[in-house]
Amino acid sequence: MALIVQKYGGTSVADVERIQNVARRVKESYDSGNQVVVVVSARSGVTNELVKRAYQLNPNPDEREMDLLLSVGEQETIALTAMALHALGIPAVSRTGSQAGIETDPAHTRARILRITGGDIREQIDAGKVVILAGFQGHSPEGQVTTLGRGGSDLSAIAIAAALKADLCQIFTDVDGVYTADPRIVPLAKKIESISYEEMLEMASAGSKVMQNRAVEFAQKFKVLFEVRSSFNNNPGTIVKEEVPSMEDVVVSGVALDKNQAKLVVSDLPDRAGTAAQLFQTIADAGVSVDMIVQNIGREGKANMTFTVTRDDVKRAEKAVKAAFPELEAGEGFEASEIAKVSVVGVGMRTHSGVAATLFEALAEAAVNIQLISTSEIKISVGIDPQDAEKAAQVVHRAFGLDVASDS
Amino acid sequence: MALIVQKYGGTSVADVERIQNVARRVKESYDSGNQVVVVVSARSGVTNELVKRAYQLNPNPDEREMDLLLSVGEQETIALTAMALHALGIPAVSRTGSQAGIETDPAHTRARILRITGGDIREQIDAGKVVILAGFQGHSPEGQVTTLGRGGSDLSAIAIAAALKADLCQIFTDVDGVYTADPRIVPLAKKIESISYEEMLEMASAGSKVMQNRAVEFAQKFKVLFEVRSSFNNNPGTIVKEEVPSMEDVVVSGVALDKNQAKLVVSDLPDRAGTAAQLFQTIADAGVSVDMIVQNIGREGKANMTFTVTRDDVKRAEKAVKAAFPELEAGEGFEASEIAKVSVVGVGMRTHSGVAATLFEALAEAAVNIQLISTSEIKISVGIDPQDAEKAAQVVHRAFGLDVASDS
Repeated sequence: MALIVQKYGGTSVADVERIQNVARRVKESYDSGNQVVVVVSARSGVTNELVKRAYQLNPNPDEREMDLLLSVGEQETIALTAMALHALGIPAVSRTGSQAGIETDPAHTRARILRITGGDIREQIDAGKVVILAGFQGHSPEGQVTTLGRGGSDLSAIAIAAALKADLCQIFTDVDGVYTADPRIVPLAKKIESISYEEMLEMASAGSKVMQNRAVEFAQKFKVLFEVRSSFNNNPGTIVKEEVPSMEDVVVSGVALDKNQAKLVVSDLPDRAGTAAQLFQTIADAGVSVDMIVQNIGREGKANMTFTVTRDDVKRAEKAVKAAFPELEAGEGFEASEIAKVSVVGVGMRTHSGVAATLFEALAEAAVNIQLISTSEIKISVGIDPQDAEKAAQVVHRAFGLDVASDS
Repeated sequence: MALIVQKYGGTSVADVERIQNVARRVKESYDSGNQVVVVVSARSGVTNELVKRAYQLNPNPDEREMDLLLSVGEQETIALTAMALHALGIPAVSRTGSQAGIETDPAHTRARILRITGGDIREQIDAGKVVILAGFQGHSPEGQVTTLGRGGSDLSAIAIAAALKADLCQIFTDVDGVYTADPRIVPLAKKIESISYEEMLEMASAGSKVMQNRAVEFAQKFKVLFEVRSSFNNNPGTIVKEEVPSMEDVVVSGVALDKNQAKLVVSDLPDRAGTAAQLFQTIADAGVSVDMIVQNIGREGKANMTFTVTRDDVKRAEKAVKAAFPELEAGEGFEASEIAKVSVVGVGMRTHSGVAATLFEALAEAAVNIQLISTSEIKISVGIDPQDAEKAAQVVHRAFGLDVASDS
């Protein structure tokens, strides 16, 4: 008998029919002899509707009241899901975040989990019941309802799986799993059977977002084995787990493409110690995250700094940089252009050499010009012209032997 | 400085604009120097929508899950109302039934209040805050969410007013107050300035339903002074309070009309002790409430029993009575017909004689035939042909000097 946590997102419980579908899936797992804890989100659209009403009443709504408001979405779903299970003859009981003892700090709308008692969940599942837990919500030490912010329901599922020492946490979503590349861009992409936490994190930060990194990091920290799979079919998904030696046989697990990047070039900076620190502190103070960074020497011994940010942050970064020009004793050189980022990710890179060479060669053969490069232990990213993005992802995918039916 | 509890029903908080209207009213009272606790219902329509979804998933939904489901309606409203007050610069904080320590028995969907701690409400209002409390909900001793059943939000308001020893509880609704008769039927009806709990209860049970009797009974028990008034205008409402001697000066406070009655006649019953008990036990076992009862002797020394039930209950009563015929050693005499009930209510009846005579005379002059009569200490009801109902209410209203601008 295994203890399984199943998490269903908003699209999986969007209406009565889909809730019935979820109930049938849960029954299947329960009837196979598993103990099942189900974590659900609000029906899709509900949270947006509540937020809209809040902002109509107050352009700056109180965060405590916002959390109390938003938590109703999940509370509705847990009760309805329990009723749907009862209709199938499955004993089930719902629990709110507070009832499950999901204790968080009091940072309303973006609370962090402090500890999980689980309330009486263990008792209920040992009594043969399926427990339906409201995702996304917890309670502060003062007993106020808190919410966990973006991706909070995934985090709830992973966290309760950790607290209950579940054998598996299944994240049901609207995709079949994690792919070697986005199948809409690389038609020959295939589903990855298993992947390490670290690769999953790098894939996400490189643009292949299936889950929020918070949940993955939590799973990594507490060694929660989880599976990403579709709630709309029975295909096996992708298992995300601790790295095992055999994973290193695959040099590159996936290719990620992020088309939402911009390249900023600040030129004519004095070439002296501290300039880079000063520049990037200014940008960080403006709340802008920087991804890739390249420094090179331009004309007359001046330094040029090239870096990337997401496109939404370009205006803010530009404002911050230009305001800092006098202090930096810099010229007025500033350029911004859109770029795409292609990344290859794989724990096998640690032990295999030649990954960068293969990557660059593939791009060169396809006449794709590389503008920036950045590397981490298990990832290499290149910034390229957005017009080349899809072609680049395809040739790189092929070069690393990831295409379906490839043998390499 | 007075402590005032204000209760707003579902139509008063139906949408964003109406919630803003409520916030303005609360602000008015707060700015006048009052301490204010606000009790709100779910936005009208929300509860029905939730119930509909529940029954789509399960024709016999679990009552505990139902309560958890239904409580989201009020939880949404309290958060939104708090935000609306913040937008007007009023410090406000919301509390769920659990947070306010509304402890009930565990009878889900129809829980009874056991005790009210008030949580930190007193502390919050003493700190200058308006507290917004979710009506209709509480928690069982086991910490489960419970709901109070029909009229539950009125009950929440009266109960928290009792617990906080509030100076006044204002029940805001869509009518201006309690009238001497339904103004749609008796155009000369006028609003009653003040009325005793007992009269209010008799008026309701006689068909003039402004509030559920549970809330009025609770108010009577704990001597909570309350006012029924409209949330859509500034007219003073009707004060409901303990009987004071001056109330007896008015013999009849109001005329109630109930058109949803049916008269059942069971004939050819053996005229012996125990028959009536047996008959009405049978009907009670079928879950049917009986209102007026008249027994008389028919042909050949057999007894006839005439009684009234609401029209919805006719089929169930008929089935129960007919099934009991053999045991009752009764003939097969059964007739059902629709009737209307006109009642006059007033604590003044206790000390004034001649009320029945005035009533019967007025009806006789209007050629209205009386089919049944029943009396209580402060009420006289007559059953009449439904076609005479409105005329009867009008002539009786006039006969007791209740018409607007009348001097008698």
